[in-house]
Amino acid sequence: MPSFTVFKGHKSGNPKQSTTTKPDQLSDDNVFIRVTASGVCGTDLHFRGADMVLGHEGVGIVEDVGPACHSLKRGDRVGWGYEVDSCGHCMECLQGSETFCADRALYGVSNLDQGSFATHAIWRESFLYPIPEGLSDIDAAPLQCGGATTFNALQGIKPSDTVGILGVGGLGHLAIQVAAKMGCRVVVLSGSDRKKAEAMQLGAHEFIATKDAKKLEVSAPINRLLVTAAVPPNWELILPVMAPRSAIYPLSVSSGNLEIPYMGLIMQGISVQGSMVAPRYLHRQMLDFAARHQIKPIVETFPMTEEGIKEALDRLDRGEVTYRAVLVPK
Amino acid sequence: MPSFTVFKGHKSGNPKQSTTTKPDQLSDDNVFIRVTASGVCGTDLHFRGADMVLGHEGVGIVEDVGPACHSLKRGDRVGWGYEVDSCGHCMECLQGSETFCADRALYGVSNLDQGSFATHAIWRESFLYPIPEGLSDIDAAPLQCGGATTFNALQGIKPSDTVGILGVGGLGHLAIQVAAKMGCRVVVLSGSDRKKAEAMQLGAHEFIATKDAKKLEVSAPINRLLVTAAVPPNWELILPVMAPRSAIYPLSVSSGNLEIPYMGLIMQGISVQGSMVAPRYLHRQMLDFAARHQIKPIVETFPMTEEGIKEALDRLDRGEVTYRAVLVPK
Repeated sequence: MPSFTVFKGHKSGNPKQSTTTKPDQLSDDNVFIRVTASGVCGTDLHFRGADMVLGHEGVGIVEDVGPACHSLKRGDRVGWGYEVDSCGHCMECLQGSETFCADRALYGVSNLDQGSFATHAIWRESFLYPIPEGLSDIDAAPLQCGGATTFNALQGIKPSDTVGILGVGGLGHLAIQVAAKMGCRVVVLSGSDRKKAEAMQLGAHEFIATKDAKKLEVSAPINRLLVTAAVPPNWELILPVMAPRSAIYPLSVSSGNLEIPYMGLIMQGISVQGSMVAPRYLHRQMLDFAARHQIKPIVETFPMTEEGIKEALDRLDRGEVTYRAVLVPK
Repeated sequence: MPSFTVFKGHKSGNPKQSTTTKPDQLSDDNVFIRVTASGVCGTDLHFRGADMVLGHEGVGIVEDVGPACHSLKRGDRVGWGYEVDSCGHCMECLQGSETFCADRALYGVSNLDQGSFATHAIWRESFLYPIPEGLSDIDAAPLQCGGATTFNALQGIKPSDTVGILGVGGLGHLAIQVAAKMGCRVVVLSGSDRKKAEAMQLGAHEFIATKDAKKLEVSAPINRLLVTAAVPPNWELILPVMAPRSAIYPLSVSSGNLEIPYMGLIMQGISVQGSMVAPRYLHRQMLDFAARHQIKPIVETFPMTEEGIKEALDRLDRGEVTYRAVLVPK
């Protein structure tokens, strides 16, 4: 059996090169992909010490397909993300919400011998997404999780709505572009003015530095707020600029409790909406939308080596990446 | 000018009888109502020490109408609730969401010289609700806030959904009936088994005592949970029985922070939805729905006197009322 290179988390916190084998004959609808780019996501930081192959923002070229594949063929360009399988017949799967399938296969939980920090990977055809023309491999990689997460969190929004983006980073800088191209007024909230020029160039209409602010002033109340900052916001500052019946989407947080004043939610009919990556139909719409509107991440590239991965993770951990790290084959 | 009796909060915590005057000639669309029943709501407890007329679950008979009234006439039976006015022309009012009008007049904030703990009251016609046949004055009173709050929180639910009601009290015992009549499976969660028989009789399909439980077992995951208990629930116990993409409505809480695990919300796409009383169109639908399905509160009545009010508030404060207190003219 041929083998290929993967990079696994390691208890030292510094990922190590390893090897996975490919069966001579692919089974079922499995697809063998040569990785051409991989985004580096905040979630990867959680697993850098775990014994598993890292990476879940993959883009690559199909090299071989299993006997049950029906749409992909050798040479096709595809991406994959945070979810790579689901049961296909539960109530959630039947409703196109397979991200909530009880048997979903998610990064960090299932298929630990595969990942996008690798030279190759094997995944089911039904969780691979053709990459439209007009997006480079490097552009497309961060869309597979970051893009899908922000696009999903903007579903149901109206073009006349005001969208708040709290935090300008890997998720935030994509969310600004998506919301702007959806026709919304985009208000960016960030600690300092440092990222203002870039945020405005990405499509923001308004930029508010929150640090030291006693009261926020927005030109229109926010109908939906995507929280993409690493630290929980000061709700006493935020809630007064939320519109009645608006929604708050915490996207970046990973543990601990949400703590938010009850009365702030109740008296304005505000909701807090938990949200994950997009189900497949939305993932496809997201890629099409990104290609059509040329929504692209701003990236720093690193070589797909032990050193390159360590450097990318370290910079991400220190909040130094502008705005998404992408690993490319050396 | 004629005068009428009202009962105001007092710094002693024991409401005092007082007097309000009625203009000889009502202005605009004002309506003069003789109170025939008033519910006692948890919110009244917050204001029992405040210098204002208490009560906001009023039912009565129209005795006089102002020159701009166009639908009500002397002898009509009407109710009113937590909101008694709004601007009528803002974006929220224009969308039938006048409960979130920035100029809304709410109990405890506006019109402090009027209330339902009184012999009479004067309100604008446009915030009065005709009481349908088939509901007595005493039945209808608790619907004006408690009924409207639960009905509002059940909007958008599907008859095939499972509704969880946490807490069997003034709100909870109404919510059980409404959800059951909407066709839903109703799961009641309560501390002990004490209220089980009554909850099942009100329409619950399942009753779970949560005290001392390490893990909850429900026959179907909960799509919407109405939290009507006085104390915040143990989310670690509750979240595992919530369905993916379900919603939690905290209805009874009044201050402090909601504290809920971020990952529980995110990994299942669960939302926490702030919710108030119903806007007028839903308040009317609620009354019609209640009359059609004979949804009625279980009440304890008290005389509309200083002593009766004190007794009702004290019992409510101690959690002793089964399940809604109603004041009636002595």
